[in-house]
Amino acid sequence: LEIPSTSISLSDTVTPAFLPGEASSTTPNAPFEDYNTEGPEHDVLKGLPALRAEWITDRKDTVSYQGRRRDLEDDGKAAVRRGEASKEWQGERRDPRRGKEHPVTQMWYARQGVITPEMKFVAEREHCDVELVRTELAAGRAVMPLNINHPEAEPMIIGEKFLVKINANMGNSAVTSSIDEEVEKLTWACKWGADTVMDLSTGNDIHTTREWILRNSPVPIGTVPIYQALEKVDEDATRLTWELFRDTVIEQCEQGVDYMTIHAGVLLRYVPLTANRVTGIVSRGGSIMAQWCLAHHQESFIYTHFEELCEIFKQYDVCFSLGDGLRPGSLADANDQAQFAELMTLAELTQKAWNHDVQVMIEGPGHIPFDTVRMNIEIEKALCKGAPFYTLGPLTTDCAPGYDHITSAIGATEIARYGTAMLCYVTPKEHLGLPNKDDVKTGVITYKIAAHAADIAKHHQGAQDRDLAISKARFEFRWMDQFNLSYDPDTAIAFHDDTLPAEPAKMA
Amino acid sequence: LEIPSTSISLSDTVTPAFLPGEASSTTPNAPFEDYNTEGPEHDVLKGLPALRAEWITDRKDTVSYQGRRRDLEDDGKAAVRRGEASKEWQGERRDPRRGKEHPVTQMWYARQGVITPEMKFVAEREHCDVELVRTELAAGRAVMPLNINHPEAEPMIIGEKFLVKINANMGNSAVTSSIDEEVEKLTWACKWGADTVMDLSTGNDIHTTREWILRNSPVPIGTVPIYQALEKVDEDATRLTWELFRDTVIEQCEQGVDYMTIHAGVLLRYVPLTANRVTGIVSRGGSIMAQWCLAHHQESFIYTHFEELCEIFKQYDVCFSLGDGLRPGSLADANDQAQFAELMTLAELTQKAWNHDVQVMIEGPGHIPFDTVRMNIEIEKALCKGAPFYTLGPLTTDCAPGYDHITSAIGATEIARYGTAMLCYVTPKEHLGLPNKDDVKTGVITYKIAAHAADIAKHHQGAQDRDLAISKARFEFRWMDQFNLSYDPDTAIAFHDDTLPAEPAKMA
Repeated sequence: LEIPSTSISLSDTVTPAFLPGEASSTTPNAPFEDYNTEGPEHDVLKGLPALRAEWITDRKDTVSYQGRRRDLEDDGKAAVRRGEASKEWQGERRDPRRGKEHPVTQMWYARQGVITPEMKFVAEREHCDVELVRTELAAGRAVMPLNINHPEAEPMIIGEKFLVKINANMGNSAVTSSIDEEVEKLTWACKWGADTVMDLSTGNDIHTTREWILRNSPVPIGTVPIYQALEKVDEDATRLTWELFRDTVIEQCEQGVDYMTIHAGVLLRYVPLTANRVTGIVSRGGSIMAQWCLAHHQESFIYTHFEELCEIFKQYDVCFSLGDGLRPGSLADANDQAQFAELMTLAELTQKAWNHDVQVMIEGPGHIPFDTVRMNIEIEKALCKGAPFYTLGPLTTDCAPGYDHITSAIGATEIARYGTAMLCYVTPKEHLGLPNKDDVKTGVITYKIAAHAADIAKHHQGAQDRDLAISKARFEFRWMDQFNLSYDPDTAIAFHDDTLPAEPAKMA
Repeated sequence: LEIPSTSISLSDTVTPAFLPGEASSTTPNAPFEDYNTEGPEHDVLKGLPALRAEWITDRKDTVSYQGRRRDLEDDGKAAVRRGEASKEWQGERRDPRRGKEHPVTQMWYARQGVITPEMKFVAEREHCDVELVRTELAAGRAVMPLNINHPEAEPMIIGEKFLVKINANMGNSAVTSSIDEEVEKLTWACKWGADTVMDLSTGNDIHTTREWILRNSPVPIGTVPIYQALEKVDEDATRLTWELFRDTVIEQCEQGVDYMTIHAGVLLRYVPLTANRVTGIVSRGGSIMAQWCLAHHQESFIYTHFEELCEIFKQYDVCFSLGDGLRPGSLADANDQAQFAELMTLAELTQKAWNHDVQVMIEGPGHIPFDTVRMNIEIEKALCKGAPFYTLGPLTTDCAPGYDHITSAIGATEIARYGTAMLCYVTPKEHLGLPNKDDVKTGVITYKIAAHAADIAKHHQGAQDRDLAISKARFEFRWMDQFNLSYDPDTAIAFHDDTLPAEPAKMA
């Protein structure tokens, strides 16, 4: 079992001679071993090696089958016109697999008392006992999003007892960016420390873009399948059906998506609760489902067919990320009835998914005053029985577009400190535009800071080791060590200049 | 009494017609009145008008006197060689004033039951009752740093019951920047929202640079007089004396410095407490005083002459900013004996200063794990009887040089939420170099976010008004209003582009 890790080698500590004529002495500093999300170097045209392929087949509980294959409509109308996607995936194509007789989820194995290689991998990666991994998975307090059709992914775990994780969003849209750019952003995000990536594409070549991303991603990939479903009905939400949605979900299960945002908590009766909000429904998925419910005056088809979704997910080990379609989009709307009504429904659905041994995360807000952040994670843990919370920030003020990575990192640190397991990054472009490569990097590093500050606040074992190493380097003027131990050596080096007296810039 | 304020005019809310043929209706939105720190437009060669001159003379408790005048040595050896400073101040020069028979501090007036024009100004600026201003000043729980020799300053208040304030550090050094650049940074910092500015210059022309800054500053100016004292003894800390330090303090009192960082808590017996620290003494002032104490094996001359300092300060209304010379420079050193021993001494000195009716702030850390931030403000309030806490961050991790505005804004929000009255900004260059104009702006805006998020968390009256206004503008797609209400319209506009579908970039 080879665990990915980055070894940062450090130079010696030099103690100057005390008496003239004496030699100075040196003490070696052990290399710092860093958690690594970058994955192995590889050719993006061929994709990553299938790390978990044998682990999956060795369990003999899955079968390979024909699958539905890509329909050109999966890639949108432009692809249909052209007769092909913009840039067909040319690397290896495997037939999809699915479970045979029982759920093939890590939760099911954990509940059976089975220690999988994935659990062992994660235990070594987190420097913890594998029994902790297994028991937390079995209880639903942790998830390992690992679709059996994404064998390239390196196992990782999301749960309060483990290191706080971060997610980076990307994805093309109708008007911007190419497949190449999206793959480049994926690699870039993983290089800087993203633990998972969500592909939120809404434009052309949506299926093929995802194929490129999955085959090249060392981290779990999440999606919002309703986005693709909507593309298939020309963005007319009222034309959505359960069957179309289900088929889109299966398409993505077969491709290997590890977790999916499912807005099953936007119930018909909750929609009026948003009528007097300042910013209404800001979640795209939430607003799609609200539109559908109102137009048909029927209960959400995702809610009514939830058990069927569980039946699908358990064959692939896809993890639910139960979406907060009614999350507040401004401080004024924070902590209202709509938000908590939906959360209670998500708690009910969590129990249903767990009855199927399907893994679940709960998505959280949004825009929340700082003094109510703690309450938000505490109510989630109470209602959802410890299912991992996965929050977007939260942003602690609405007043700083262009700086929302910062307004939200403040809330993110607070919410992670009290148990939120994964933080969805926010980039400086939030509310203003789509993130470019620089924004992705800024978002990832800002959220690494938030996650790490929370790990320290939680007294997570060893969390302060890196701080100690970099502080020692700082005190001893080992500048290169300080740079290499920093989250962004390139920026630290660029900022450092030869004219540095440094001290006057500090408050003394 | 004319209170500075920025009026942000907003466009109308347009409600589209409901039925065809109907006209759309519009509802006007009242302009948003913003707290303004920018001061009036003026010619930097002439300086600002002396807003408070009459208020001060009308009290008839001060006299104008000859003063010690600038000695060329105040500007360093290069100035002595040249026979002049690099850029002599050509604007108005007033003889200094000082109190005659009683302290002329705002605290003294408050304790006498006198409502000064300064208090009225502040009450209108903060939209609060002037009695609140007076009682908080009288109790020492708030300060108004307003040297009578800086009549250009617009009164502002620092205290837990008022809006959280932010300070921006600047200052030249032996190797970089000119007087022009420092004045430009001052104006720039005030434009973006700095409530006070500290001039931490250590290089050439230190006296003259300060003259330019004071004559052009609409906000209170703080300094660390030991820096200039050290320049006068060729940076040999062991040659410092009480007399030289005292004369430097008087020089700065006569110029108009509003508050001074005084490291009077670094006692001889505390220095050994830092021996086993990872990063020793990181405060420049703290390290200067520790060197002096060790070299002479005597108690700090600032501590032993503290009452004399009070006698000086009360003649000019200079506010103490009692420096935390032993603050931790890394998480590993946080919350140690040295830090809290010094804090207890600062508490003792606070009482001494208050006995002289001299205003006091307490400086705080530094580098602190997030879960111990709250404790730090609570122990300060308990020991120092509510004297305003003025903290540098604190930084919540040591691992992100280049991003320390963010690592520290997280801690700053938390510490302000529980009562810290003023936050000293940290720029992206912290630990790496001196901040340029861009860094000053990033630092100020990041700290405006932290202060504002804390005001909201404290349920400070009206703190959420701006969030409401910008959220309404966002929901109604009033883009220009959204930009104008944001803390940095330039950046928001630059980030916004025509290709904006925005939604896919959010987690849905």
